[in-house]
Amino acid sequence: MGRIICAGLGPGDPDLMSLRAARAVQGAGHVAYFRKAGRQGQARRIVEGMLAPGCVEYAMEYPVTTELSADSAAYISVLNGFYDDWATRLEKLAATEEVVVLCEGDPFFYGSFMHLHVRLRGRVEMEIVPGITGMSGCWTATGRPITWGRDILTILPGTLPQDELARRMRESDAFVVMKTGRNLPKIKRALVAAGRLEAAVLVAHGTTRQQRIVHVSEMAEGDCPYFAVVMAHGGAGRE
Amino acid sequence: MGRIICAGLGPGDPDLMSLRAARAVQGAGHVAYFRKAGRQGQARRIVEGMLAPGCVEYAMEYPVTTELSADSAAYISVLNGFYDDWATRLEKLAATEEVVVLCEGDPFFYGSFMHLHVRLRGRVEMEIVPGITGMSGCWTATGRPITWGRDILTILPGTLPQDELARRMRESDAFVVMKTGRNLPKIKRALVAAGRLEAAVLVAHGTTRQQRIVHVSEMAEGDCPYFAVVMAHGGAGRE
Repeated sequence: MGRIICAGLGPGDPDLMSLRAARAVQGAGHVAYFRKAGRQGQARRIVEGMLAPGCVEYAMEYPVTTELSADSAAYISVLNGFYDDWATRLEKLAATEEVVVLCEGDPFFYGSFMHLHVRLRGRVEMEIVPGITGMSGCWTATGRPITWGRDILTILPGTLPQDELARRMRESDAFVVMKTGRNLPKIKRALVAAGRLEAAVLVAHGTTRQQRIVHVSEMAEGDCPYFAVVMAHGGAGRE
Repeated sequence: MGRIICAGLGPGDPDLMSLRAARAVQGAGHVAYFRKAGRQGQARRIVEGMLAPGCVEYAMEYPVTTELSADSAAYISVLNGFYDDWATRLEKLAATEEVVVLCEGDPFFYGSFMHLHVRLRGRVEMEIVPGITGMSGCWTATGRPITWGRDILTILPGTLPQDELARRMRESDAFVVMKTGRNLPKIKRALVAAGRLEAAVLVAHGTTRQQRIVHVSEMAEGDCPYFAVVMAHGGAGRE
């Protein structure tokens, strides 16, 4: 009897992986991970040099769909088929083998693994190892606490409409915007509308050698990675 | 030249500590940690059995102030004096030694270490090691993702007024209420007012052997630990 272990790998620096995740990775006979076609992939990059010789790798490459809008029914259908296929393949493999699925960050916090988890629940034994979130790595990198005492912290996907982003930014002591990338121009406009542009910091490639911490206006809009986060710290009057 | 390393220890299970935090703890000659007077303390408990022989321990015991209200100027003054004293002691020690401050969870996310950090910034070299948050440990323990796709997640201190809690609960796809303990009756009333009581789950001692995952109404109000969290998962229609 096999099973699936989903190992949360943390924000990017391999040294920030948990002891349990590191053990799972180093002992794995089979690892699977999502990536864009033609890329190494963030999760695979984090474990570079850690896999045992002979470990079998399964790169789950997102279908190339540049011709389809991410909101279209056609795109969602292609993506559902992709997750269904990999759920079936991993289920077969996990009938006899232990398979470690590599996930950047914390798997149950906006993670891609959830699309496999919801399909495999009740069909396969699964263990989820939580990880340090990308945003924790990023706010630690800024050298300032994200929240104090009674601060309310709001986590906002950058895919939300501009007005919704602005309203939530205005009403939160601290906030983190995830999934920035091509949404950056909209996020900037929301920051301006909320009166929070000056306070906001952008962290790209947090905790890795490529880490950049800049004011939002310093990031060229075409260069913003999808996993960069924009944040405003709480603790008004505390620092 | 010494320095201070603040090691985020994660949600409770020592196996969920990062590789970097584990190395800092195991190699420490001096460790300091907050605790209530007369208790072992959560941070110290997590590293049980990991400290080197001869490691010097500094228990930073909160002043006993049961006669003072936590909102009173007198209480805040006592607490400020306490943080000032320990900042001075650790600064002296860190002039020549490396001191590891042990912190449960993630230090820059509502952590007590921030009160030392704000006092010691610019006076002492400090490194902060992020950790898996208590809430990540707790939502992973529930076996369900906290957020999907476009979900907004709100983190709410349980110390907020009831109406504020209810309004935020109502307006969030997913939420986590921290600092529950004696605030549980108020949090329950806010859940009822927000129409979210049925969906809410309480996790106490997440990731430890004492872990309890219950419906909010199953927790006797006097028994709720301060670090227990109440949460409602996002992903409406996804699961």
